[in-house]
Amino acid sequence: MHGEIITIGNELVSGKTLDLNSRYAAKCLTEAGLRVTWITSAGDDYKMVSEALNKAVGRSRFAIITGGLGSTHDDITNNIIAKTLKRPLCLNRQMLERLKFIAKERRIEMTPSLEKMAWIPKGSKILDPKQTICGFSLVENDVSLYFLPGVPDEMRYLMDKFVLPEVLSLFKSVPFMGQRILKIYGISEPELSEIFGKFQGKTGDIIFGFYPHFPENHITMSLKGKDKSLVIKELDRVEKEIRHCLGSHIFARGNHSMEEVVGQMLVEKSLTISVAESCTGGLICHRLTNVPGSSNYLKGGVVVYSNQAKVDLLHVYPETLKRYGAVSENTVREMASGVKGYLKTDLGLAVTGIAGPEGGSKEKPVGTVHIGLAVGSDIFSGKYRFWGNREKIKLNTSIMALDWVRRGLNGDPFLPGI
Amino acid sequence: MHGEIITIGNELVSGKTLDLNSRYAAKCLTEAGLRVTWITSAGDDYKMVSEALNKAVGRSRFAIITGGLGSTHDDITNNIIAKTLKRPLCLNRQMLERLKFIAKERRIEMTPSLEKMAWIPKGSKILDPKQTICGFSLVENDVSLYFLPGVPDEMRYLMDKFVLPEVLSLFKSVPFMGQRILKIYGISEPELSEIFGKFQGKTGDIIFGFYPHFPENHITMSLKGKDKSLVIKELDRVEKEIRHCLGSHIFARGNHSMEEVVGQMLVEKSLTISVAESCTGGLICHRLTNVPGSSNYLKGGVVVYSNQAKVDLLHVYPETLKRYGAVSENTVREMASGVKGYLKTDLGLAVTGIAGPEGGSKEKPVGTVHIGLAVGSDIFSGKYRFWGNREKIKLNTSIMALDWVRRGLNGDPFLPGI
Repeated sequence: MHGEIITIGNELVSGKTLDLNSRYAAKCLTEAGLRVTWITSAGDDYKMVSEALNKAVGRSRFAIITGGLGSTHDDITNNIIAKTLKRPLCLNRQMLERLKFIAKERRIEMTPSLEKMAWIPKGSKILDPKQTICGFSLVENDVSLYFLPGVPDEMRYLMDKFVLPEVLSLFKSVPFMGQRILKIYGISEPELSEIFGKFQGKTGDIIFGFYPHFPENHITMSLKGKDKSLVIKELDRVEKEIRHCLGSHIFARGNHSMEEVVGQMLVEKSLTISVAESCTGGLICHRLTNVPGSSNYLKGGVVVYSNQAKVDLLHVYPETLKRYGAVSENTVREMASGVKGYLKTDLGLAVTGIAGPEGGSKEKPVGTVHIGLAVGSDIFSGKYRFWGNREKIKLNTSIMALDWVRRGLNGDPFLPGI
Repeated sequence: MHGEIITIGNELVSGKTLDLNSRYAAKCLTEAGLRVTWITSAGDDYKMVSEALNKAVGRSRFAIITGGLGSTHDDITNNIIAKTLKRPLCLNRQMLERLKFIAKERRIEMTPSLEKMAWIPKGSKILDPKQTICGFSLVENDVSLYFLPGVPDEMRYLMDKFVLPEVLSLFKSVPFMGQRILKIYGISEPELSEIFGKFQGKTGDIIFGFYPHFPENHITMSLKGKDKSLVIKELDRVEKEIRHCLGSHIFARGNHSMEEVVGQMLVEKSLTISVAESCTGGLICHRLTNVPGSSNYLKGGVVVYSNQAKVDLLHVYPETLKRYGAVSENTVREMASGVKGYLKTDLGLAVTGIAGPEGGSKEKPVGTVHIGLAVGSDIFSGKYRFWGNREKIKLNTSIMALDWVRRGLNGDPFLPGI
């Protein structure tokens, strides 16, 4: 039941254009329980495309081929099929009528280059019976080949409406494909790998995927089976085992972001929050406000990029800044309680640190970050050391700060700092 | 001079992840004057990867292969190379020491799965002499193979620093490739296309590329030639013509971002800035603070996501909010002058608007945004209507606000609003 995808175009092999079509086709097919083994991109070149076509006919059960069906002179897919598979181009009269109709409607001249699109390889079948979009299929040596335009909208339309149903009908017994995503923060990839090593043999036929998504790690669990309820039951069982090992390190299931998880918790508990940011420079607020409806719990934030701003906006004591410095536990605690009081919220979240590349010292190297969380009359704080460039330190700090809110609200321990 | 790219990973052939690495490599190589003929993605599977490797060795001069070098058990590239090319894995002691050092520094246990990364195929050469990132090269049948990690940051670092210079040195007579990027804001793609249509015939052999990069448009100009100085002269001539047509719509040349351009101007003029954000929720500050050294001009910012915060933090008159609403010219003007006075800066930038999906009305639909800029005793303000989802509205607003600072400091007219 495995197939492959071939995308044709100089814009792809030159890196000019991101290949969204192969990804779309791969996702559709995989989610439907089929297996894609290869994706090949080739330039607008006879030799390359011909070789890819021959390969596909030799090794796959089906292939999706996109691109090169248009009217310009670099659209040569039809000619390549004709030569490679020895199927001369024949005029499809219905297609020609349709093209004439469209040309008239849009007041475009019916040129030879437009007519070219109606000449398709012998034995092929137009995919869309209404023929609004060019695209056809043919069977060669028992291998089903689907030729689609490279324009993403058109390709997706034909893929969804015609290709996928037809491919699925070729393989009567396509099993149910169960998939689950778990998002993890606070465990490194090698540590995760060790933990999962211990599962070996206890996870049945489930296929795991590990995806670093800095600073998070995402795990996918995939299981195929004829009986949907059994598949789900087995995924549930293994997910429970994983949760037993990873506990509160799992912050989300499915495609939810850390800020969505935190937002959902704040809504459920009817709590409000405010944020005081130094080294993240607004990123925490930006993340929180990416979630629609966040104005219900986020009252506001301050970006205090200077000492004066910390004093003026958050009433951090100049004394504290002088004695301990802007990047210190004392300062972050005053920032958290300051912003909470100032914006009259239930929670006050604060970060201060050194994002680099300048500003580090031996005692406080680049990547040193303090996080503070004020809740009721309590103030919690912790110190971390993050690695990487400015962008990564900002990113990691923002996720860690949001994770503090999540753990604080859940009653879970905060991740250990330094 | 042609080569190919192979990307390895189940996440690619299943469509879970967009293949950014092949595109990056293709772009680098093409821009350097080399030719990529094939891009192949294969799953984490011995048969698939082995076939792709054998093909590459048989038909290309060089190949870039990414993915499968990590520490988890689905990272099997090294084992596949060992079997396919008959090169047993050998322990690279320097790499092992380096991994031990990193593990110690980051307080990660030195596990067997981590050690695995130091076992590389016989005869291969570590790419990065400092060995902070795994990646190696080997020569098989006169074909240069470069194996890079799948993590985009690491892959890009090795590609730029080591692979590209080495590949270029293999082919002595690569012609000089002159390239230039112009970044444009405030002109739509169809408008740009019309403008460039008029250039036809006046731009010699220069190849143009148009890349929409919402909400910006980027134009590349490429020209190959044996004589570097002639190529540069010709690019200069055509760039001048383009600038004559597009004027202040061109905000950057090369890879500089809007916030870098604005930051540079503030440094040159020794000016400070503060920001008051409503609908962008911290994104403007986040962008500004992405630039190293931004603490020299950005004193701070406030995210005022509630009316109360606008009153408390910025001293916007409750009267103004009541009479005109939070999304109004009057409010944005008070916000701009409020934040400027509060943080004692030369410039005060403010935005207020409706990012959606909720909160719109007939008079003030989703996407309505006001921008205010306070400079000295002047306050400028404008009203815009942006389109798209929440993310796009936030993004467009942040760029427009920064563009106001750029135009304000340059003495250029602001982009027309509604």
